[in-house]
Amino acid sequence: MASATNGSSNGAAKSRFDPHFTEHVVNLMSPDTKPRHREILSSLIRHMHDFCRDVELTQDEWIIGVNYVNAIGGAYKKNRNEAWRVCDILGIESLVDEINHKIATEEGLEPTSSTILGPFWSPETPFRENGDSVVLNMPADGQLTWFHGVVRDVETGQGIPNAVFDMWQASTNGKYDVFDPENQTRHNLRGKFKTDAEGRYAFYCLKPTEYAIDTSGPSADLLRIMGRHPNRPAHIHIMVTHPDYVGVTAQLYPNDDPWLETDVACAVKEDLLLNFKPTKEDKNPECTLDCEYNVRLISRKYKPDAEMLKTNANIVGGK
Amino acid sequence: MASATNGSSNGAAKSRFDPHFTEHVVNLMSPDTKPRHREILSSLIRHMHDFCRDVELTQDEWIIGVNYVNAIGGAYKKNRNEAWRVCDILGIESLVDEINHKIATEEGLEPTSSTILGPFWSPETPFRENGDSVVLNMPADGQLTWFHGVVRDVETGQGIPNAVFDMWQASTNGKYDVFDPENQTRHNLRGKFKTDAEGRYAFYCLKPTEYAIDTSGPSADLLRIMGRHPNRPAHIHIMVTHPDYVGVTAQLYPNDDPWLETDVACAVKEDLLLNFKPTKEDKNPECTLDCEYNVRLISRKYKPDAEMLKTNANIVGGK
Repeated sequence: MASATNGSSNGAAKSRFDPHFTEHVVNLMSPDTKPRHREILSSLIRHMHDFCRDVELTQDEWIIGVNYVNAIGGAYKKNRNEAWRVCDILGIESLVDEINHKIATEEGLEPTSSTILGPFWSPETPFRENGDSVVLNMPADGQLTWFHGVVRDVETGQGIPNAVFDMWQASTNGKYDVFDPENQTRHNLRGKFKTDAEGRYAFYCLKPTEYAIDTSGPSADLLRIMGRHPNRPAHIHIMVTHPDYVGVTAQLYPNDDPWLETDVACAVKEDLLLNFKPTKEDKNPECTLDCEYNVRLISRKYKPDAEMLKTNANIVGGK
Repeated sequence: MASATNGSSNGAAKSRFDPHFTEHVVNLMSPDTKPRHREILSSLIRHMHDFCRDVELTQDEWIIGVNYVNAIGGAYKKNRNEAWRVCDILGIESLVDEINHKIATEEGLEPTSSTILGPFWSPETPFRENGDSVVLNMPADGQLTWFHGVVRDVETGQGIPNAVFDMWQASTNGKYDVFDPENQTRHNLRGKFKTDAEGRYAFYCLKPTEYAIDTSGPSADLLRIMGRHPNRPAHIHIMVTHPDYVGVTAQLYPNDDPWLETDVACAVKEDLLLNFKPTKEDKNPECTLDCEYNVRLISRKYKPDAEMLKTNANIVGGK
């Protein structure tokens, strides 16, 4: 039971509210509660209580929150994971990604930053040859790009042979192949490439196009309240793996994109920017742009338990 | 865009994660965001991020949380407000109630503690005469009680005439009148009483019976994970009002109830306990118990904007 003083203030320095209430709730957990459950729920209870006290949440505001949480689940359906969207808007998916993938060598050398996987990775993407094109269906407004680089060991700087550079991107209409069967054949704008003896990969793709997330439902209501737009910067997804290294999953963004600073999913990091340069020398006359991006991988010895792939997209379906 | 260092640690003392990320997300809010929205959402974002960092939430755990939030809304239906139930279990409804009703005189004198309203208050409860019984349908296992007391000014100690003492309680089967039409007529175990010239009220009611909340759905899953039972201690609801005083809404609990310390809704406070004493002297031979409870009210001058009634039960329907 929470303590209540009768006729005298409790003298708590920090808060005028019962200083024992939060610990009372935490301590309702059974001694048999699994340690990780206890750790997570204790922290959640403490932070939620501190939030209520910090803003002195009114009952009307609390009821708005209760109704909002109910509405999130009410909007859930196949290919629409509303709680996931809300997490993206609040930066939670991006933060959890950082928490799980932040890693550095003893000297503080960091591999290419991880960022959110998104729901559109496919385990069935075919391998292609270096120099091939992933553009199976060229849109009229597409800008064909020669995309190339080296996958290096972050400590030695040496190229890593036989790394897998898996990439996927939306077409210029903002849609991925599986959601756009009228315009795109399966595996359009997707490909896996194996790095050569010097760690090099290369292919043709499109300069990516920015798109907005769906602007209906509770997640969009949240954006409106915050005065935020629904746009993601244009991006190319990559997942780079090698058995001897910790894999990197990231999104790469053109450095001239207007939404870099205000990405609705809060998933842009400085080392993930791309510089698309005009080219007139490419052997393919349709190709007008050149883009080089080098990836840094860190030895698996720094995280022996790292999974090869980040595949939560498969667990929950699309959003 | 969140900053990412390339090849050197950022030197943040407290966290190994990007020390600028949370403020980046907060600052995505537009300058036009309403100040209260900004205050609430900034605090929510900071606390949710701190929670994720404090427990180093894994991606699998985060996805469990995403699915759980979706499931809460999926369980919502008429007379079942799942997000509200989860808030009760986490102590959030009780805390918000304290935040909104904590009040004291300049000398630190406090009125009777507020506690959660619950969903079963009725605006249609009839006035009855002091000395009447609210027991319209006597259950076989009921214990008739002479319930009486004085409503006093917390500063002067004087009885307050013409205060309204509104009470409601479940029957011995744990059900309120509206959900138990086979056994209970409308307004059974409900009544409003006006205090007399000395501030006294009195009526016959039942000694209340403890009951469990529904043990299905996501809220019950949460209880199971925490190793907690679903029981509320027995209680009588009261709502005491007077135009010159700040109203008090509370639940009163028998001091011998087994669930006082572990109330599933975390809503017990020390000054809300009742002492039921055996009696053989009552004028009504069926009456076996006597219970006295005195209420302390605080002058409205300490909270001139206080609403007369706490009626959020009407806003959202039952839970």
